[in-house]
Amino acid sequence: MNRIIALITDFGVQDPFVGIMKGVIYRINPNAKIVDLSHGIPNFNVKYAAFILKVSYKYFPKETIFCCVVDPGVGTTRRGIAIKTRNFFFVGPDNGCLSMAALEDGIITCVELKNREFMLPEISTTFHGRDIFAPVSAYLSIGVPITNLGPVVDPQELVRIELPKPTIENGFYEAEVLAIDSFGNIFLNVPCDLFSELIWTKVIIETQDKKLEATVGRTFGDVPLGRLVLLKETSHGYLEIAANQASAKDLLNVKLGDKITIRRTQ
Amino acid sequence: MNRIIALITDFGVQDPFVGIMKGVIYRINPNAKIVDLSHGIPNFNVKYAAFILKVSYKYFPKETIFCCVVDPGVGTTRRGIAIKTRNFFFVGPDNGCLSMAALEDGIITCVELKNREFMLPEISTTFHGRDIFAPVSAYLSIGVPITNLGPVVDPQELVRIELPKPTIENGFYEAEVLAIDSFGNIFLNVPCDLFSELIWTKVIIETQDKKLEATVGRTFGDVPLGRLVLLKETSHGYLEIAANQASAKDLLNVKLGDKITIRRTQ
Amino acid sequence: MNRIIALITDFGVQDPFVGIMKGVIYRINPNAKIVDLSHGIPNFNVKYAAFILKVSYKYFPKETIFCCVVDPGVGTTRRGIAIKTRNFFFVGPDNGCLSMAALEDGIITCVELKNREFMLPEISTTFHGRDIFAPVSAYLSIGVPITNLGPVVDPQELVRIELPKPTIENGFYEAEVLAIDSFGNIFLNVPCDLFSELIWTKVIIETQDKKLEATVGRTFGDVPLGRLVLLKETSHGYLEIAANQASAKDLLNVKLGDKITIRRTQ
Repeated sequence: MNRIIALITDFGVQDPFVGIMKGVIYRINPNAKIVDLSHGIPNFNVKYAAFILKVSYKYFPKETIFCCVVDPGVGTTRRGIAIKTRNFFFVGPDNGCLSMAALEDGIITCVELKNREFMLPEISTTFHGRDIFAPVSAYLSIGVPITNLGPVVDPQELVRIELPKPTIENGFYEAEVLAIDSFGNIFLNVPCDLFSELIWTKVIIETQDKKLEATVGRTFGDVPLGRLVLLKETSHGYLEIAANQASAKDLLNVKLGDKITIRRTQ
Repeated sequence: MNRIIALITDFGVQDPFVGIMKGVIYRINPNAKIVDLSHGIPNFNVKYAAFILKVSYKYFPKETIFCCVVDPGVGTTRRGIAIKTRNFFFVGPDNGCLSMAALEDGIITCVELKNREFMLPEISTTFHGRDIFAPVSAYLSIGVPITNLGPVVDPQELVRIELPKPTIENGFYEAEVLAIDSFGNIFLNVPCDLFSELIWTKVIIETQDKKLEATVGRTFGDVPLGRLVLLKETSHGYLEIAANQASAKDLLNVKLGDKITIRRTQ
Repeated sequence: MNRIIALITDFGVQDPFVGIMKGVIYRINPNAKIVDLSHGIPNFNVKYAAFILKVSYKYFPKETIFCCVVDPGVGTTRRGIAIKTRNFFFVGPDNGCLSMAALEDGIITCVELKNREFMLPEISTTFHGRDIFAPVSAYLSIGVPITNLGPVVDPQELVRIELPKPTIENGFYEAEVLAIDSFGNIFLNVPCDLFSELIWTKVIIETQDKKLEATVGRTFGDVPLGRLVLLKETSHGYLEIAANQASAKDLLNVKLGDKITIRRTQ
């Protein structure tokens, strides 16, 4: 058995932290198959990690182990956990970063990481990615049963994160910026299937200090260069504001967590 | 059969897009060998991608599949293509990003990506890297014949990108900035074998607002710290302006596409 | 035999240089197992690379080959070397970047890279990572004996880098900033086992233009959000100044090489 390990952290790619975690994994599983899902989660942003994991996990092979290290509480009393869901495994701190994906896929078993046999001999207070989560993921990858890792935990007791709910009225949406990618595309907390406004063609998008028209469309090339498009069917399932070969983030001057309103004009 | 897949995109490393593509590839080829060639292509810059692919591809094993996703026209009528050349495979949008490398290596077969059997079941309008190019590359990696992917296309019909031609006169070059690396080294559109000025030892390099002397040399250490060197034999085959432990880009204050003139002084 | 190759460079992740090195490695070892240890070493900073390698190498499997390309002297007379230590291999320029880790693990054999048979046919003057260090590492990974690579060198003759020594007096430390990670955590040149001040609970940290109190603690969560903590037992073995979900670097306004003084207040 050689399950894939997918890493998601807020470590960035400047430092050796991710590389060290891979070294630890290879010491346990010399044939490990490791995928970097993302190391660009904004520092300490557990909610962002939970959202990215939720929109990403289902594209991976069955039994992939998602090792998530976005862990501002490292070394405090927060627990480390491993979850087996219907199709996957999730490993990380019990701070909610695993919750959206795991609940969506359906939790089968959850354990608290307590068994020192599956950790590094010395456990630091600041780098559990290296000392606990990487080795646990490596042992899972070679088939160690999840219940060997520690005592079973009631899934009801796990810390959960939920997305903020948008306000949806007739001809009006108040949404929140969940994520912004490196192109400046803006992901909103409105599931596409809640946007049933099939006949809308133009909207006004308003932020704290900007007010711009956007076309409701299907892809970037539906609007002229530099103009805004509100994508109503997206690759991740949430409404997205983009611009054709430009940055919607810069045009609208928004950041994570900002409120955005969308009103129909046509 | 397990051909290597090399990814080149403008996705950056902050977001989960590359990781998701790898998940898709592993679902099709559980033993995939994936190399990140570059995810730092400037956003939407098809010409830059074409140039980087051209100076990189020949260092990879035979039959490597280059999957290039620099695709501002995603979801529009631009085609997706796969190309078999004498030694390699290239997969991506038909916008020219594959053209320089594929033409140099010699095109054997080109197909339009039409066969849905080798794509994800649902195809978004904004992420063909995940839905089309990753799965197609994965199927090629395990030996699916390229002609299974869709109808054959006449290579003459492919979109082509060509490098701008430099102006070369007696004792004078007008060149364009093709690329700038993270050290600030400047790559010019002058093939080294066109720079036959073997006896030149000093030049004046002029940009829009700077005019600096450079030594014609072979490596960074040929000049004092912080000084410019014009490298006449480079690792990539094009003239390069560099500085010894400093940034030529900052010294000359240039950006992509800028014109640079080079005149002999000694 | 298929030893892991761990890459550490100052190439960043924007450019194709690391990807090209991997292509070269795969041509020699089609089943190569390559780990990116770090490509975020500050440009040309050999001392930084040496430090990162020192605090990282021991987490990797035995016989891992560390290929370090932080090489401002590329193409000059500085030598390329390969070192076999008690548990690992190190490949790179003889500028000191390998020295701290190799000396700590214990040098068995050191050779100068001279045998052209284990390099690319054409060797550029500016990219020995591609032309020499990658192929040499690949050949080591498949079991080529290190002494085949070139003549044996006396380890006493290798360029060495040593960390600056801190000044430690009664109730007072003068330290230097060795590294700063992407969270803004500051790593100092004081080995934790020299910080025997077990009863200290509060300190004043002074930089060129800041003077702030910090709590002596074990992890980030030991202090309120945004406040400084002096970590006395760290994951890497050197004193670290951090902040709870904030950047100690920004709070203290420091950069690499700066001096920091630490005085006891409680």
